[in-house]
Amino acid sequence: MQVAYDGTDFHGFARQRGLRTVQGTLEEAIGRILGMAVEVEGSGRTDAGVHARSQVVHWEQPYGPPPERYPEVLRRVLPEDLIPLQADLAPPGFHARFSAKRKTYRYTIQRARVPDVFTHRYAWHVPVALDLAKMRDAAQQLVGEHDFTSFCAAATPVEDKRRVIHEIRLEERETYLDVYCTGNGFLQYMVRIIVGTLVDIGMGRLDRPVAEILHARDRRLAGRTAPAKGLTLWEVVYDLDPAERGETSS
Amino acid sequence: MQVAYDGTDFHGFARQRGLRTVQGTLEEAIGRILGMAVEVEGSGRTDAGVHARSQVVHWEQPYGPPPERYPEVLRRVLPEDLIPLQADLAPPGFHARFSAKRKTYRYTIQRARVPDVFTHRYAWHVPVALDLAKMRDAAQQLVGEHDFTSFCAAATPVEDKRRVIHEIRLEERETYLDVYCTGNGFLQYMVRIIVGTLVDIGMGRLDRPVAEILHARDRRLAGRTAPAKGLTLWEVVYDLDPAERGETSS
Repeated sequence: MQVAYDGTDFHGFARQRGLRTVQGTLEEAIGRILGMAVEVEGSGRTDAGVHARSQVVHWEQPYGPPPERYPEVLRRVLPEDLIPLQADLAPPGFHARFSAKRKTYRYTIQRARVPDVFTHRYAWHVPVALDLAKMRDAAQQLVGEHDFTSFCAAATPVEDKRRVIHEIRLEERETYLDVYCTGNGFLQYMVRIIVGTLVDIGMGRLDRPVAEILHARDRRLAGRTAPAKGLTLWEVVYDLDPAERGETSS
Repeated sequence: MQVAYDGTDFHGFARQRGLRTVQGTLEEAIGRILGMAVEVEGSGRTDAGVHARSQVVHWEQPYGPPPERYPEVLRRVLPEDLIPLQADLAPPGFHARFSAKRKTYRYTIQRARVPDVFTHRYAWHVPVALDLAKMRDAAQQLVGEHDFTSFCAAATPVEDKRRVIHEIRLEERETYLDVYCTGNGFLQYMVRIIVGTLVDIGMGRLDRPVAEILHARDRRLAGRTAPAKGLTLWEVVYDLDPAERGETSS
């Protein structure tokens, strides 16, 4: 099932006792419909304040409504900031996280001098001159397979920090700058540190070459972490061709 | 000074002890800058949940920063959902409410089957077929000077319920329908009851002619009250020509 959420009032995706989370809210709603406890798995855990235009989740059920009916049924019980978009029966072996091939995040920067009050929850306000050519050039250097130790939370527990970034695209839209970042997987804070670093480069606060930052494998050499509120999980792509399944990794 | 706000998390414009309001928040912020208590007057009181793209406020001060500096100074102390846009010294005798000549509200209806999670705070979700021609026709009958007793809260304490509506314009924008309503002043819930009535007419739930509803001076004959969250104070127009001042009324 695809769901969209406004992350502002959630303590992130991952279930936490006593806190309002996306996973916990979905599990409670689906559990109430089925009259049994369910575990809902997502394509990944978004941090507190991070939004989703399209997060993908799955769960197992021995009985219950046909999958395609879920969005309509759930819309009546879910809060307004968590909206089910569409659902289908998953192919055997499907896992929202492990079967994901590619993810795209969008990070939105508001460049106008005065921020728009109706997008303050969804954009980072950066009212200074940015050198977009320099930012695009730095973004290009991040594309490809790299060890992203310098671009993730220093405490990230994952061993293997190699990831593939397929594309980083900067698009101007009215007074906004959208950074679309597509890859095979992202480490904690990775997109936010990439965007913070691009902004620091665009402002002229940082001029160390990206290749050098990557090579150092040291979080302190990259730029700041952009705030959560500008980040949106945009799209998760699966390869549902049966011949391909089983070849994907986390 | 012009201010914009996201009304979702405010208990309306008007100051209320112990509650977060737009007026109270502005008075506290300006009071802190000046080191003295101030009274901030607005062009009108928006209800809880109603937003403003441009609300106009004024206050008196014996000393303090030059007016045009206020937005920048205040932006550092005000919350992100209340944004000062611009300020000027008001001409003598100016009053944000009494000098207002004309106001425009915009009411936004989301017509898509599935609501957009990023506009759920700012639009009313009406996922059914609407006959726009019928709605436009009904809107035209509300234009002009009328007694709007049927189109305001039954408990409205104001004696004279005659108001002039200059224009009601329905504009389609992607999956949204915006209703712009301009008049010389509005009674409590008036725009929301007008929009609720237009929607009931568009859905075919109500087919009494608008002229008959107006004539009856009975709130029960009009349609429902549209929810606050779709309503935004869009623009307040003043006539600052000195020759005209003093001729305006509330």
